[in-house]
Amino acid sequence: MLKTTKESNKVEKVNEPDKMKEYVSKFKELLEEKNIIDTTITLITWELETIVPPKGIELLAKQIGYFSMKSYNIITSSEMKEILAYFNQNKESLNPVLQRETELLSEEMERMDLIPPDEYKAYKELIAESQSIWKTAKETNNFNMFKKNLKKIFEYSKKFATYEFDSKDEQYKQEKVPYDILLEQYEKGMDTKQLDIFFDTLKKEIVPLLAEVLKKQRTKKIKFPIVSVDSQKKISKFLSSYVGFDYESGVIGESEHPYTTSLNKNDVRFTTKYTKNLPTASIFSTIHESGHGIYEQQTDDKLTNTILGGGSSMGLHESQSRFYENMIGRNYYFWKGIAENSVFSPIFSKMNLNGFYLGINTVAPSLIRIESDELTYSLHIMVRYEIEKGIFNNEIKIDDLQNVWSKKMYDYLGITPKNDTEGVLQDVHWADGLIGYFPSYAIGNAYSAQIFNQLKKDLNFEKILENGELYKIKDWLKIKIHKYGALRNSKDIIKKVTGEELNPIYYINYLRDKFLNI
Amino acid sequence: MLKTTKESNKVEKVNEPDKMKEYVSKFKELLEEKNIIDTTITLITWELETIVPPKGIELLAKQIGYFSMKSYNIITSSEMKEILAYFNQNKESLNPVLQRETELLSEEMERMDLIPPDEYKAYKELIAESQSIWKTAKETNNFNMFKKNLKKIFEYSKKFATYEFDSKDEQYKQEKVPYDILLEQYEKGMDTKQLDIFFDTLKKEIVPLLAEVLKKQRTKKIKFPIVSVDSQKKISKFLSSYVGFDYESGVIGESEHPYTTSLNKNDVRFTTKYTKNLPTASIFSTIHESGHGIYEQQTDDKLTNTILGGGSSMGLHESQSRFYENMIGRNYYFWKGIAENSVFSPIFSKMNLNGFYLGINTVAPSLIRIESDELTYSLHIMVRYEIEKGIFNNEIKIDDLQNVWSKKMYDYLGITPKNDTEGVLQDVHWADGLIGYFPSYAIGNAYSAQIFNQLKKDLNFEKILENGELYKIKDWLKIKIHKYGALRNSKDIIKKVTGEELNPIYYINYLRDKFLNI
Repeated sequence: MLKTTKESNKVEKVNEPDKMKEYVSKFKELLEEKNIIDTTITLITWELETIVPPKGIELLAKQIGYFSMKSYNIITSSEMKEILAYFNQNKESLNPVLQRETELLSEEMERMDLIPPDEYKAYKELIAESQSIWKTAKETNNFNMFKKNLKKIFEYSKKFATYEFDSKDEQYKQEKVPYDILLEQYEKGMDTKQLDIFFDTLKKEIVPLLAEVLKKQRTKKIKFPIVSVDSQKKISKFLSSYVGFDYESGVIGESEHPYTTSLNKNDVRFTTKYTKNLPTASIFSTIHESGHGIYEQQTDDKLTNTILGGGSSMGLHESQSRFYENMIGRNYYFWKGIAENSVFSPIFSKMNLNGFYLGINTVAPSLIRIESDELTYSLHIMVRYEIEKGIFNNEIKIDDLQNVWSKKMYDYLGITPKNDTEGVLQDVHWADGLIGYFPSYAIGNAYSAQIFNQLKKDLNFEKILENGELYKIKDWLKIKIHKYGALRNSKDIIKKVTGEELNPIYYINYLRDKFLNI
Repeated sequence: MLKTTKESNKVEKVNEPDKMKEYVSKFKELLEEKNIIDTTITLITWELETIVPPKGIELLAKQIGYFSMKSYNIITSSEMKEILAYFNQNKESLNPVLQRETELLSEEMERMDLIPPDEYKAYKELIAESQSIWKTAKETNNFNMFKKNLKKIFEYSKKFATYEFDSKDEQYKQEKVPYDILLEQYEKGMDTKQLDIFFDTLKKEIVPLLAEVLKKQRTKKIKFPIVSVDSQKKISKFLSSYVGFDYESGVIGESEHPYTTSLNKNDVRFTTKYTKNLPTASIFSTIHESGHGIYEQQTDDKLTNTILGGGSSMGLHESQSRFYENMIGRNYYFWKGIAENSVFSPIFSKMNLNGFYLGINTVAPSLIRIESDELTYSLHIMVRYEIEKGIFNNEIKIDDLQNVWSKKMYDYLGITPKNDTEGVLQDVHWADGLIGYFPSYAIGNAYSAQIFNQLKKDLNFEKILENGELYKIKDWLKIKIHKYGALRNSKDIIKKVTGEELNPIYYINYLRDKFLNI
């Protein structure tokens, strides 16, 4: 999971008349201030997720409310509007960075401008407060405790999406629904129509494949040894460095739900969660979040102080984390290359490499998304996508969420949670206001297989893993994807790298190829 | 060591005319904003000390520069000046909280107002940057690396102190020196004249006492077992809770130099540093910082959102940390009460309680202040006090600091450092701009013995320690000292608790009594 900070702008000199110069300089100033404020919000959020003591939450939530308004005031200021209007009228004289910043900021400004300041502030405070309520609710297995906040979050989310939806032209309104507004925030150009087709394809292919694999699969669920939290910490630190996460520009922490956040490319932070009885949970969340982190750390230096310093879209971001987690992290040769390192002795003194490899690739419908196997993973996403869509079109009520969750889990995966902790409370996303985010994971899976298909043509993938030359993969991704940051949109990047737009067939082929041959 | 955040103000209703009401309301608003900004600076500083990756320092330093200016702008705003002027003219109609806030804020405003904004910003950025340079210099044992920053810090410090000194009346100028300006910031009313007498008394008493004790002392330096960092972490968590630090309102972290900081009483943070070969280093810094933390956590709730929520003075603050560290933490009965707890088995499986007790009370001149015994501790402070004074009156040059340090260490303690890490680079204070702070430790020692003398009359101290009833001591301190926060000045508090003003005789008697009878 990824949370981002918008960054400020240092523009390059362009040949421009005095008025343009003045605007560019003022723009730079406003974005520098906005960057300081936004990165501070990111930092306080990190503190809320990883460090703050229970009674300290209130003050930090207040800080976030305060700075969110400061940021809102900059983006919706008359100065900013004037500058953006001028830039939009004079696009041809802007350099590519400024052009793209203008495009993205104009969208953000228009969206913000539709939200009354009081509502925005109340919403931001609600979110800051909700994270800890969700955490306690999850720990104590009590959905009711979180329900009130969840209702409010969905209400605000609908309200804000509807403001924007209502501002659109008639054609848009006929073709789209308010939930599409949210989907677009994470994956530009994506909407319910496309996602329905996308998920239908996945469902049509994966559900029968799952049945086939389960019938063929020789191994039952393999038990991993208990590994102390101290040893797991050493493993996480080792693995993240090994795959290429740079601790000169990064930090690892712990939180209830693993995530990555970034102040800029020089300060990228991710968390994991250590479970004594399930060492693979921290191992794979660490590799997953390292994938996010590497993306952020490898964006081009010239984008660092612009708002383009992060990833291009959530889908593309998740493609990188899922690529590291699955294509790299669950590959036999990856483990062959490192299994003898003493840091893994708590594992490999108790089981052999083959057993471990089969264990991390065993297909078995399970309740927790982030612990699920690759094959069933997208089915977990479907459950969440359908629920969000259902809440938005009033077919699902928050009060019924536990039942709806159980029913969908049963329909797609054949199992049902025994409690809220392993059911509707398992993910932090809604508590963070991240509605419309989940589909990015499935899109990311599809992107990752499509990119992987290309990468294997260019690199001797398994040899690289066996030799521990992960920098070669990291470099390839840097040149093809990471360095562009948000300068290009993900559609263009994918097309340039793979020769075509998002196509789920690569993902399906990848799964079929892997799981029928394991 | 302690770093503080100024806090905002929620005033109580007083009977006041409309104009007063209006001012009080505006005052409240300004301080609420200042509180959010100041606590954010505290949070970013914490991040800089404990978490930030090397390349992330730059951005966080920039954030601190930005927010420091925002805070400066509030305190020196014409609105604030107008309000404070009015409050100063109408003191009698203010409640005690507002009266004291007016007093302290007026002082701060006047001090800030003398500093040009550009210089203030540059200074704040210098400090934010210096911490990591100092850290690397210390780690690599390289004073030259830090010298440039240290020179600048002292230059700014002199400059700012001189601005204030020059603004004083003729009588003040005749009686005082610019360094006194800094001393007053940490201990109101303290000056070089009094400190010279104070330290002369200490020197006159402690130096011969030290010789006597060293001659009499049966034990040589006792070696403690090696304790893994993981075990030390468990010990620190246990000990801090055991003495009364509340983790509902607090956090423990790690940093190069142990310190305590506080956003408000609900979010108090302290750090320690774990040294495998010297478990007592983390043990005693943990108890020391817990003493600071308990003080902050026990201030009265009604002061929480005022600027009076922290301790009264640095001297009084250090008296609490030194009291916890020494009177409690180095007492035989304290350890008798907990030695059997399994958390201490890495220690007490290798040595017995008596050996441990003698070990933690062995007198031996040593190079590192925070690892020094009680008897020689104040001599370490004298070295620093004389150096600061010498730099201020141009008798000592930063370029000569290594030599001066060695000479003074030899004069007072009979030993000299082999390198900068165990010499002039050992403390973070100067890198933090905390010049004039060190004497607070010695004053704190004296206060602590004076308070201890009184506490023992009211409580059965050793019985309480043996029974592990530390809440009784915590409660006594709350009622006598902590609850007042900064509402009263430390002079008045000490006088009320002990019946007299600062008197080093109690400290000398305490040392004599303890070390001649051990």
